[in-house]
Amino acid sequence: MMKNGGEIFTERGLIDLISRFAGSVTSKQVVRGIGDDCAVIDAGPDTVWLVTVDTLVEGIHFDPSWHPYTLLGRKAASVNISDIAAMGGVPKFALLSLAVSGETDLAAVEDFMTGFSAVLQENNTVLIGGDTVKNKSNVFSITLIGEANKEKILLRSKALPGDSIWVSGGLGEAAAGLELCRRGLVDSREWRPLVMAHLDPEPQVLIGRHLAESGRIYAAIDLSDGLATDLAHLCAASGTGAEIYQQELPCSSLLKSAAAFLQMSLDDLILRGGEDYQLLFTAAPGDDKGIKRLVHEKTGRDIFKIGRMTGKAGVFLAPGRECGAADLRDITFQGYDHFAEPSASGS
Amino acid sequence: MMKNGGEIFTERGLIDLISRFAGSVTSKQVVRGIGDDCAVIDAGPDTVWLVTVDTLVEGIHFDPSWHPYTLLGRKAASVNISDIAAMGGVPKFALLSLAVSGETDLAAVEDFMTGFSAVLQENNTVLIGGDTVKNKSNVFSITLIGEANKEKILLRSKALPGDSIWVSGGLGEAAAGLELCRRGLVDSREWRPLVMAHLDPEPQVLIGRHLAESGRIYAAIDLSDGLATDLAHLCAASGTGAEIYQQELPCSSLLKSAAAFLQMSLDDLILRGGEDYQLLFTAAPGDDKGIKRLVHEKTGRDIFKIGRMTGKAGVFLAPGRECGAADLRDITFQGYDHFAEPSASGS
Repeated sequence: MMKNGGEIFTERGLIDLISRFAGSVTSKQVVRGIGDDCAVIDAGPDTVWLVTVDTLVEGIHFDPSWHPYTLLGRKAASVNISDIAAMGGVPKFALLSLAVSGETDLAAVEDFMTGFSAVLQENNTVLIGGDTVKNKSNVFSITLIGEANKEKILLRSKALPGDSIWVSGGLGEAAAGLELCRRGLVDSREWRPLVMAHLDPEPQVLIGRHLAESGRIYAAIDLSDGLATDLAHLCAASGTGAEIYQQELPCSSLLKSAAAFLQMSLDDLILRGGEDYQLLFTAAPGDDKGIKRLVHEKTGRDIFKIGRMTGKAGVFLAPGRECGAADLRDITFQGYDHFAEPSASGS
Repeated sequence: MMKNGGEIFTERGLIDLISRFAGSVTSKQVVRGIGDDCAVIDAGPDTVWLVTVDTLVEGIHFDPSWHPYTLLGRKAASVNISDIAAMGGVPKFALLSLAVSGETDLAAVEDFMTGFSAVLQENNTVLIGGDTVKNKSNVFSITLIGEANKEKILLRSKALPGDSIWVSGGLGEAAAGLELCRRGLVDSREWRPLVMAHLDPEPQVLIGRHLAESGRIYAAIDLSDGLATDLAHLCAASGTGAEIYQQELPCSSLLKSAAAFLQMSLDDLILRGGEDYQLLFTAAPGDDKGIKRLVHEKTGRDIFKIGRMTGKAGVFLAPGRECGAADLRDITFQGYDHFAEPSASGS
């Protein structure tokens, strides 16, 4: 954590501060305000609008010395679209605020826009507005508006004790990729999939949409700050706890090799590593095969059951499903915090 | 203008660059994309949503050494609400992205939020979302969503040659206030109204709404970058030109005194000074008394006719209404450009 004039300054602390001010005006049109991946606004008999804003800061979220601007533009769009995906919606409209430093080449801004608009195009999303300002460093702030079926949105608050916990893909890959970039290995062939997980993550819009449309899934969040933190957000919103089973966490052989090569803890990468932008969701127990088949049929993708929701507050790690209480390790909110960790550039 | 790797970098240049990428995906739901104060999205049989994003950067848009954070929070909300006002809408929902430096006190963020949410409350607007990131300097990015009547929105593109040009209040006051702050006079009693025009501008929501509802006004813009630039935007969007008459420009005696005291050109302040957040709008000729009375009855405010739209591209200044072509001075786009001018802090 970071000291600020004697105060403890964390990302959660700041969000709590903002949230305190959010209740002073209310509206029946606001289905969900601060506290989920997107705000949810009533927009017709069956439809809600999902609205989210996310900001990428040079030196914190990206290091231009290894992050090509085209891929940075892609990532800026993708991480915001991921918030829409986490609620089972489809992205529709985007606004972009560019704060650009005097040292930035116009060609770099053009590259950024090329990548940014390519992802918008892939997701059939219209760039409807934006502004530009001069700044000491590059800061990209993106607003995304999406649409979803009112009765079928996925909410952080809808998990129940006993639900199975699922993830839509491998974890820790982006964190390993970031560390490989820090060590100058951005161009290595061997580690390409991990490096690309950091440079160009894929928002899981299709999986989110099919999960929501199935009517069998109610709770989801996207994994931006690491499993330990994002699952803790879901638990807090649902008034539940969670147990994660180490044996069941998906882990590619490439990630294992990278952890060994980097001399980093594989556990830390998987549990704490941020920015994978996979979806984490919960499902009623006993429907495992059905959920797996649904996602595979609709998207060709495998999903992974990694634990279960409980009635005891907090996120706990156990070696396996049959372990006793003594084996539980509390990992609540132990994911990535941009205010607490070294920045993308390691400075 | 600012050199960037051999390229000429202006605010308009960057917006043009973004706009080039905005056309790749289109949607029938988008009534207006980039190019007006807000994007306009279809939201029902009679209703459109207005969406805008604006970013305030420390050292460019504000200097924390004289700008109290409470007033900065107010201004951050007000300048965005002003974009909604310029289209005749009412603000409904806000999202806030806070990029905060490590040197910023948590108390300062709390002050910012106090001012920000006070303006939201005054305008019955709900804070529905936001995010926080660490940054080298403070950058506040605000997204505003408003609502308007589909048939009655005010657009930059609706001015016609022959229309009268009006402004909703005094110009150059905020620019004089900024200069007074730069010279250490933020607390002077004498200049208080000018200093407050810079520190805490008032969005003209009421005037915008009544102009739109009257059905007699079609074209408007808010004055953020100075009359010469914002009127040029309106002309470009409408395919018209404009003549402004020096004799008719509103100018308070306090502004005259300040210009003399600061040894600044009164003309420059009025024509080029940014951030007044008054509305500029056009009306059919011959309805002067009706428009003045309408605004006065509904809001108690005086408005000022300052010129007329023409068929000749560009914005021209003449001493008075009866002057010949030889007296016209081209001032097209000669307002404030954040990329070209010294910053708020003078650095």
